[in-house]
Amino acid sequence: MRGVVIHAPKDLRVEEIPAAPLGPRDVRVRIQAGGICGSDLHYYHDGGFGAVRIREPMVLGHEIAGTIDEVGAEIRRLTPGIRVAVNPSRPCDVCQFCREGLHQHCLDMRFFGSAMRFPHVQGAFRQSLIVNETQAIPMPTTLTTAEAAMAEPLAVCLHAVRQAGPLLGKSVLVTGCGPIGSLIVLSARYAGAADIVATDVTPFPLEIAERVGASSTINVAKDSAKLASHAQGKGTFHVLFEASGNEAALRSALDVVRPGGVVVQVGIGGDMKLPISVIVAKEIELRGSFRFDEEFEMAVELMGKGLINVKPVLTDTLSFERAVEAFELASDRSRAMKVQLSF
Amino acid sequence: MRGVVIHAPKDLRVEEIPAAPLGPRDVRVRIQAGGICGSDLHYYHDGGFGAVRIREPMVLGHEIAGTIDEVGAEIRRLTPGIRVAVNPSRPCDVCQFCREGLHQHCLDMRFFGSAMRFPHVQGAFRQSLIVNETQAIPMPTTLTTAEAAMAEPLAVCLHAVRQAGPLLGKSVLVTGCGPIGSLIVLSARYAGAADIVATDVTPFPLEIAERVGASSTINVAKDSAKLASHAQGKGTFHVLFEASGNEAALRSALDVVRPGGVVVQVGIGGDMKLPISVIVAKEIELRGSFRFDEEFEMAVELMGKGLINVKPVLTDTLSFERAVEAFELASDRSRAMKVQLSF
Amino acid sequence: MRGVVIHAPKDLRVEEIPAAPLGPRDVRVRIQAGGICGSDLHYYHDGGFGAVRIREPMVLGHEIAGTIDEVGAEIRRLTPGIRVAVNPSRPCDVCQFCREGLHQHCLDMRFFGSAMRFPHVQGAFRQSLIVNETQAIPMPTTLTTAEAAMAEPLAVCLHAVRQAGPLLGKSVLVTGCGPIGSLIVLSARYAGAADIVATDVTPFPLEIAERVGASSTINVAKDSAKLASHAQGKGTFHVLFEASGNEAALRSALDVVRPGGVVVQVGIGGDMKLPISVIVAKEIELRGSFRFDEEFEMAVELMGKGLINVKPVLTDTLSFERAVEAFELASDRSRAMKVQLSF
Amino acid sequence: MRGVVIHAPKDLRVEEIPAAPLGPRDVRVRIQAGGICGSDLHYYHDGGFGAVRIREPMVLGHEIAGTIDEVGAEIRRLTPGIRVAVNPSRPCDVCQFCREGLHQHCLDMRFFGSAMRFPHVQGAFRQSLIVNETQAIPMPTTLTTAEAAMAEPLAVCLHAVRQAGPLLGKSVLVTGCGPIGSLIVLSARYAGAADIVATDVTPFPLEIAERVGASSTINVAKDSAKLASHAQGKGTFHVLFEASGNEAALRSALDVVRPGGVVVQVGIGGDMKLPISVIVAKEIELRGSFRFDEEFEMAVELMGKGLINVKPVLTDTLSFERAVEAFELASDRSRAMKVQLSF
Repeated sequence: MRGVVIHAPKDLRVEEIPAAPLGPRDVRVRIQAGGICGSDLHYYHDGGFGAVRIREPMVLGHEIAGTIDEVGAEIRRLTPGIRVAVNPSRPCDVCQFCREGLHQHCLDMRFFGSAMRFPHVQGAFRQSLIVNETQAIPMPTTLTTAEAAMAEPLAVCLHAVRQAGPLLGKSVLVTGCGPIGSLIVLSARYAGAADIVATDVTPFPLEIAERVGASSTINVAKDSAKLASHAQGKGTFHVLFEASGNEAALRSALDVVRPGGVVVQVGIGGDMKLPISVIVAKEIELRGSFRFDEEFEMAVELMGKGLINVKPVLTDTLSFERAVEAFELASDRSRAMKVQLSF
Repeated sequence: MRGVVIHAPKDLRVEEIPAAPLGPRDVRVRIQAGGICGSDLHYYHDGGFGAVRIREPMVLGHEIAGTIDEVGAEIRRLTPGIRVAVNPSRPCDVCQFCREGLHQHCLDMRFFGSAMRFPHVQGAFRQSLIVNETQAIPMPTTLTTAEAAMAEPLAVCLHAVRQAGPLLGKSVLVTGCGPIGSLIVLSARYAGAADIVATDVTPFPLEIAERVGASSTINVAKDSAKLASHAQGKGTFHVLFEASGNEAALRSALDVVRPGGVVVQVGIGGDMKLPISVIVAKEIELRGSFRFDEEFEMAVELMGKGLINVKPVLTDTLSFERAVEAFELASDRSRAMKVQLSF
Repeated sequence: MRGVVIHAPKDLRVEEIPAAPLGPRDVRVRIQAGGICGSDLHYYHDGGFGAVRIREPMVLGHEIAGTIDEVGAEIRRLTPGIRVAVNPSRPCDVCQFCREGLHQHCLDMRFFGSAMRFPHVQGAFRQSLIVNETQAIPMPTTLTTAEAAMAEPLAVCLHAVRQAGPLLGKSVLVTGCGPIGSLIVLSARYAGAADIVATDVTPFPLEIAERVGASSTINVAKDSAKLASHAQGKGTFHVLFEASGNEAALRSALDVVRPGGVVVQVGIGGDMKLPISVIVAKEIELRGSFRFDEEFEMAVELMGKGLINVKPVLTDTLSFERAVEAFELASDRSRAMKVQLSF
Repeated sequence: MRGVVIHAPKDLRVEEIPAAPLGPRDVRVRIQAGGICGSDLHYYHDGGFGAVRIREPMVLGHEIAGTIDEVGAEIRRLTPGIRVAVNPSRPCDVCQFCREGLHQHCLDMRFFGSAMRFPHVQGAFRQSLIVNETQAIPMPTTLTTAEAAMAEPLAVCLHAVRQAGPLLGKSVLVTGCGPIGSLIVLSARYAGAADIVATDVTPFPLEIAERVGASSTINVAKDSAKLASHAQGKGTFHVLFEASGNEAALRSALDVVRPGGVVVQVGIGGDMKLPISVIVAKEIELRGSFRFDEEFEMAVELMGKGLINVKPVLTDTLSFERAVEAFELASDRSRAMKVQLSF
């Protein structure tokens, strides 16, 4: 079997990788679609992010869907031929945080294609993947495999929206309209926001944001005054989703969030210098949002029922054999949004 | 009448000030006790804080209590001789935020002894003060005037504790044990925390913190490893109250807050460089806490019923004629906690 | 001027009524559309509901919209010719609950066409109405006056949805699909529910419920087993909106609400015999929902932006001169949903 | 080994019972103290409650503490001689609700001395008991075994208080002052309430309530007007804990709960006829509270640290051989509060 392996920054290879054995509660999934995530790009360009670094060759990828080829001996509810979205997250289910229902904070999490642990958890950009049955979520026939492979980033965004509390009738700002920012626009629109303003520094992502539900967009590289106009009366946005991981984006957005407003930080940057006196004086709530938990199945359900349509965000598909080209394309925010590999 | 007037950094004078007229819904209060607040010290040492600067001579002071001398023509429920804690906060009651019940975010707030507006709102370190009847809160006979003058800082801390949500059975960290940090320890203890760890960089405040309810204290200048030991399993504190306004205190505390934990930022510093990736990955909620609203009356009630005892925090009282000496003493954290002026 | 006046049960007259004077902060609105509410029907059929009874002739009506004819001397932001939705609710703004932002619980509320106070607050089914400027909400040109007159019942339903907390991805049951139930379906759909099951005892309201977003409907008069099938695993609905005011509806619904689920009670019945042991053992939260506050402006905004479309709920319009006929029609749930009067 | 076995209403026998085998992750606990709970009394007097009925002889008891005699082969952290409070609750850890962290709603719960399942889960009033290691909570040396056996009812009450949200500075009403009502008074006092009014129909429980922190008490059998005086301005209590399971108690209390107030229903009665229009018009939140989850360990911790003192509630201790006498005593609210058996 072949897979997409990162060896070092800019050294991404499509090569033979070993197959894993099928356990009694596992299924073997023939992967058909795999989306390139921002963290995949960090591994590709920089060898990691923050304290997380590649220390051995690692198969990338965790946004995947495919068809079950074989099921373990003890499995009854799944059979070969069933199409599934694959949940890349496998919490331990027994640690303190799992017991409290906070599986995303599991002390022994296994997440496909992540260098947080060592040895790394190998990823899912491969022709065939062994997953625990709990990670294989059957998808409705209404969905394409490409859409099902969007369940993971959509789950991240549904989780972020849930971190914000109810959005019904609220005024929302989204800073940074890459795939995550765009899917947040889509999710916030579905969750009942009255007004969604999206910002970015290039035109292409803002066009996508409008297509998925932004009420208006601002190119802050050109027109920062337009954002500043929302600062009247101590600020007007009830909720800010910060999806750029950029200090300047967060700083300027804090000025337009109203007192008591909520900031959901989704973008992971390094250190950021923040105006604490603004956060204190306006009693802003800054909440981190990390991965997802039950939102993965929610994502499959909402897409499957036709309630959320992610297609405008999925701009390009290339064969996995052209992975390097695909990673370069995914890095070019002026012309690509979500890029998927086909297998 | 004489008052305590700041003219410039380090230029604090006790001098004659004009009396104001008594309106029909005002009362005139003979001030008897006035506590020196951290913001008073900022005006004294630095001429202000953040963007707030003295631009004209201003009477300082907003933690006061005294006795009503005269009541306006339309007032029925108050009479001369009644002892009152004075709420220094006077929101407009008609702006958007007042209408929503968020009076601390009033767009037209008048707060005694604050240079946020220009002309400044003159303060309350004076022999006699005119206040609106809504600001004069009768105090039980069980309270001394000195205690009643603690209602304001206690209200700030009760508000901070309410920002944290329920504390029953929780593990709490308080960083910085000046008057605000110490009163937070006291309030968190009253609110049912199971465990309260307090930190500071000098021994005196930590002694006070223990007296008002800290389970244990850490001098982080000497023993930072002791704090770091709480980082096990991604961190153990449910709630952090950051009362130092110090970047290093907040940064090191973030490592010992558990996933999903709440940080209530009370100390107002300038910009702080924060590890956003930690906030995101642990889904920490960082909430500003600013002043108070209905907590002022709550503070008077809880002290009056003997449920909260602030006396250990009140370490020194000097005549207002010795204001400069009192401000210098209040600035010395190695031997003074809350310093009050008597009038 | 003529208006629609209830004198006694079944004694509804269209007759001459006196005009009120225009105060300096009032506007005079030429009423163009007025919806008949369930409470109007209670006055018509029974002379009131619960402890609320007509004790003098009272103009009915509080769901209205029209055009400003004249503005008071001190008003600047409104001018004659502006089309407005009229908010029938006028809280005192100074009582304890108003100060806390809970205006719907005002201790001195004035609400058009309500017999709660005596003398009653006369209602708005009249050719011309004097309202305080704060009650006249300009409507976008995209809206018809008939739609604007739906702002009040829509506000009731947006408020009910907000009482439920976030609905994103949740499973929702709505019992009772009159105008309120149907508008709750519409609002819950807009707020991001994954699944909405609506019940009633006649087919016509269920057809409307489907048109405004119900995933499925159940005629519980014919097919109660279908609802009971949702009781598996202690119940499956996250949220129940009870809009029938019927004891049997609430009792049977409690069996299909999951542990920790929320019941928002909107329908006002009299006493109901409830299975407390079920509420305790499943830790169900039963919350009342009463009128609305800021949701009135939210309703105008969401309709005006085309985000919520109430037209399917508005089934009939008759001239106010045919009020009796209109009230009879509005009482017939087999063929009418919201019935409006035109003026 | 001997145990306390219910055979039928009023047929309680102390008799020989079989010992269970020790599994590899179990411990054998020599029981030393066992409190009689209200549900034990229901089995004794009525053979059960609601739909729950004894269908075979069942050992009663679930409020117990003792000393470990033997540990299973795989256990490392516990050793013989360790004194433990025994958590009677054993959720399955794998069902939907356990996964969400709502273990008290486990679909396959095993709870000592409960006839909810058949065969019944035999109880803990016995000389020796086998429990899973997760159920044996070591207790500090500061605690007596009798206090440790109070961990279970205290956990129920801490859970109820947590259901209410933050109590800091709030006005609280507790209706019904048996052991649960009294421990709620104690817990609400610890959680920072400003004012706690307790009601009952006999003097003895009210005396205990005062000793554990009630600000005032009302004998509603004699002086119902005193409670009604709290109805001013739509009601004054922020939170009601209903611990009597009595319809009249709940109905009269609803009149004195303020708009937006919270009612935590802890007492399990049968059907109750409730004034839904009051719940709706005041937007009261009625929440069930059922058993506990992590509050069991919290109870041991808070008692062990001397933060909560349950001794005033524990009025009587009899040898388990005198179980019938003890059950009769526990049923007499005029002279006994919590009655424990010693083994």
